[in-house]
Amino acid sequence: MSDNANNQRQLRLGAILHGASGNMSAWRHPDATADASINLEFNIASAKKAEQGKFDFVFVADGLYINEKSIPHFLNRFEPLTLLAALSAATDKIGLVGTLSTSYSDPFTVARQFASLDHLSNGRAGWNVVTSPLEGSAKNFSRKEHPEHSLRYRIAGEFLDVAKGLWDSWEDDAFVRNKASGEFFRTGKLHTLNHQGEFFSVQGPLNIGRTPQGRPILFQAGASEDGKRLAAQHADAIFTHHDTLEQAQDFYQDVKRQLVEQGREPDDLRIFQGVSVIVGDDDADVERQYQETARLVSIENALNYLGRYFEHYDFARHPLDAPFPDIGDLGQNSFRSTTDAIKHNARERNLTLRQVALEAASPRPVFSGTPEAVADGLQRWFDSEAADGFIISGGTPNAFGHFVDRVVPILQQRGLFRQAYHGDTLREHLGLKRPLNRFTQ
Amino acid sequence: MSDNANNQRQLRLGAILHGASGNMSAWRHPDATADASINLEFNIASAKKAEQGKFDFVFVADGLYINEKSIPHFLNRFEPLTLLAALSAATDKIGLVGTLSTSYSDPFTVARQFASLDHLSNGRAGWNVVTSPLEGSAKNFSRKEHPEHSLRYRIAGEFLDVAKGLWDSWEDDAFVRNKASGEFFRTGKLHTLNHQGEFFSVQGPLNIGRTPQGRPILFQAGASEDGKRLAAQHADAIFTHHDTLEQAQDFYQDVKRQLVEQGREPDDLRIFQGVSVIVGDDDADVERQYQETARLVSIENALNYLGRYFEHYDFARHPLDAPFPDIGDLGQNSFRSTTDAIKHNARERNLTLRQVALEAASPRPVFSGTPEAVADGLQRWFDSEAADGFIISGGTPNAFGHFVDRVVPILQQRGLFRQAYHGDTLREHLGLKRPLNRFTQ
Repeated sequence: MSDNANNQRQLRLGAILHGASGNMSAWRHPDATADASINLEFNIASAKKAEQGKFDFVFVADGLYINEKSIPHFLNRFEPLTLLAALSAATDKIGLVGTLSTSYSDPFTVARQFASLDHLSNGRAGWNVVTSPLEGSAKNFSRKEHPEHSLRYRIAGEFLDVAKGLWDSWEDDAFVRNKASGEFFRTGKLHTLNHQGEFFSVQGPLNIGRTPQGRPILFQAGASEDGKRLAAQHADAIFTHHDTLEQAQDFYQDVKRQLVEQGREPDDLRIFQGVSVIVGDDDADVERQYQETARLVSIENALNYLGRYFEHYDFARHPLDAPFPDIGDLGQNSFRSTTDAIKHNARERNLTLRQVALEAASPRPVFSGTPEAVADGLQRWFDSEAADGFIISGGTPNAFGHFVDRVVPILQQRGLFRQAYHGDTLREHLGLKRPLNRFTQ
Repeated sequence: MSDNANNQRQLRLGAILHGASGNMSAWRHPDATADASINLEFNIASAKKAEQGKFDFVFVADGLYINEKSIPHFLNRFEPLTLLAALSAATDKIGLVGTLSTSYSDPFTVARQFASLDHLSNGRAGWNVVTSPLEGSAKNFSRKEHPEHSLRYRIAGEFLDVAKGLWDSWEDDAFVRNKASGEFFRTGKLHTLNHQGEFFSVQGPLNIGRTPQGRPILFQAGASEDGKRLAAQHADAIFTHHDTLEQAQDFYQDVKRQLVEQGREPDDLRIFQGVSVIVGDDDADVERQYQETARLVSIENALNYLGRYFEHYDFARHPLDAPFPDIGDLGQNSFRSTTDAIKHNARERNLTLRQVALEAASPRPVFSGTPEAVADGLQRWFDSEAADGFIISGGTPNAFGHFVDRVVPILQQRGLFRQAYHGDTLREHLGLKRPLNRFTQ
């Protein structure tokens, strides 16, 4: 787990690429690149900024369904794999993690495209495995219905069994390419999977060799019980989000325990808390920056944003300044952990619909303040085992740059974060063991 | 159709990226990059060489099934979309065409990934639409059986209807991104497809804006009757192969006629003949170069190569020096036009199995000779309307470089081929009209 001279436990950092910032209306900010989600130069500059900050990886989220009420940077965005492949040619060291759903794809294609990205990037590919929370996705993929939550996770489990099997089709030393003898590969080093399961039948082998990382790094991003179980079985990293230190610690302990139950080591999986940040000279500066972005969100947009988590429910039918309405179980089959948290928070704090919507659309960053204060907050969560690392989302269009320029150096001075890349692959950045091919003797 | 100063009809050129060369054993050649099919630097250098030669595009073939007898550069290769996305960042002008099958993919994903490539490359994306000739593909994609030939083409036709519909989800001027008013897009410029067909149900809209080219360029690569019909309905270009000028002319006339029957203009579709080339100082030099590569193919490898076209039939069970065996209808549901040609040729010339196999594995280039002779041959086919252009495959590891350095300048001097790029997009290179969005008034 330790990789610096003092054997100090090392923090890891990822950077979300999601348009002008996580805020749905940040594109309106004077400093924002309004078309950031479809602007390659913007994405290259962001990835290079993260690489300058020695980040472990950039992270591209995704979704498979939009309608006219979706948030702007979801309407017109690059597809993750193609974006990351383009970024592989424009960067040298930083990991390239992209989201892809196991509910609406084929394991052969997905295993192959991520393997190809791993080869193209010399070992920097990561796949954020999701099961597609959005009900509407089924309508774009010729399906009668969106599989319910636990079924989606059963499909995902088998999907990952298949993908891992395909990634072992070729042993590391299979390709000898002996020009004199004509031997291109060693026959015994090629393995046919012959998977016959509940959801998939995949013969193999994969038509691409074992990848520089053995296989791409697997992220898992659902915080439900099903999600945690899938992560403990299969993932190298988790991308989650908790509002309080205590919740994050509980989650951390639970996942590490499940990991051991699955026969794995606690250090075999890195837990990343997704955090939004704003960095300022003092509290007033931070508040000014927050308001500059938050005030750009109209109440109509905020209601749409909220509705997206609840199967595009139309909250506009309810009075804005009455208590948050009872909408039953809506959202249980989509963003379950998020909708549970929203409902719980509204009940506990007795919030109105307007308050819930505006808070959801412009959440106050968990980590904001002076560079020292932000570094202190991250270190406190890290030291108290609420996270192994953080995936940073700028709370304003300028916040990510501020974080790299002003917070990262403090984390480096404290010996928490690397000052230079020590390896070439995402797996090395994360301090994870390279998996053996299952067939290698 | 004409785009030079003299209004002379202009020839177009593509370059195949397929490892060390089209020959299955070329990786053994002393000058070959043995791992070319999985070597990014090699592919970047090849694309840059083609761009130096002002080629219209590079072209990446594909397949979805391998076994231990497949040819070496199919065993371990980049996936086309990710490779082309990486190449988009390493090149400026050249078109980026990749193969993807409509038989084993979802229209929403495919339309999205090619749209993303078109945005990433500023309008250089092309999709070579295939229906997957290889029977074994079904086994990698959880399907009971490989759809038969005409069914595959019916699926492909509906697939392209859906893809074109999705590419029109957003009108060209949909995204206004008015920071002051908060208007991100004009509501009336977003269109939901609501496709309900025989094979696909796809609601839309696509979550990426209309692309720089309006939509990616569509290639079609099957030469069967079904393939020609699909091309006449949907494609911007055809990639085909004929051994004789007369066959190529017949094909050319037939496709242009079908195009008009479909209500399109003859110039709405460019016909490319795939040709292998060897360029030398004289005939002896060409023969020496040919033999240097051809002699690297063992008879075992040649039989495997031949078998791939016939559903991986094991030709080794037949005597090598007896007439080519009667194997019935094998291959009718995979590479139909190729297998028909092989059987016809064997019968006409009374060839043995050994002769057929070695010729199939190391076909003599249709265009070989001195630079002038190669240019003469191409010009003759072009002038006599056997082709609108050529997709060049090097017959040896060095042949593509020779072609760019020695043949292209002759074509340029003759006014047949551009000396500089006049446009930025593949559509402009090909001299094709930008399609109107179906919803634009």
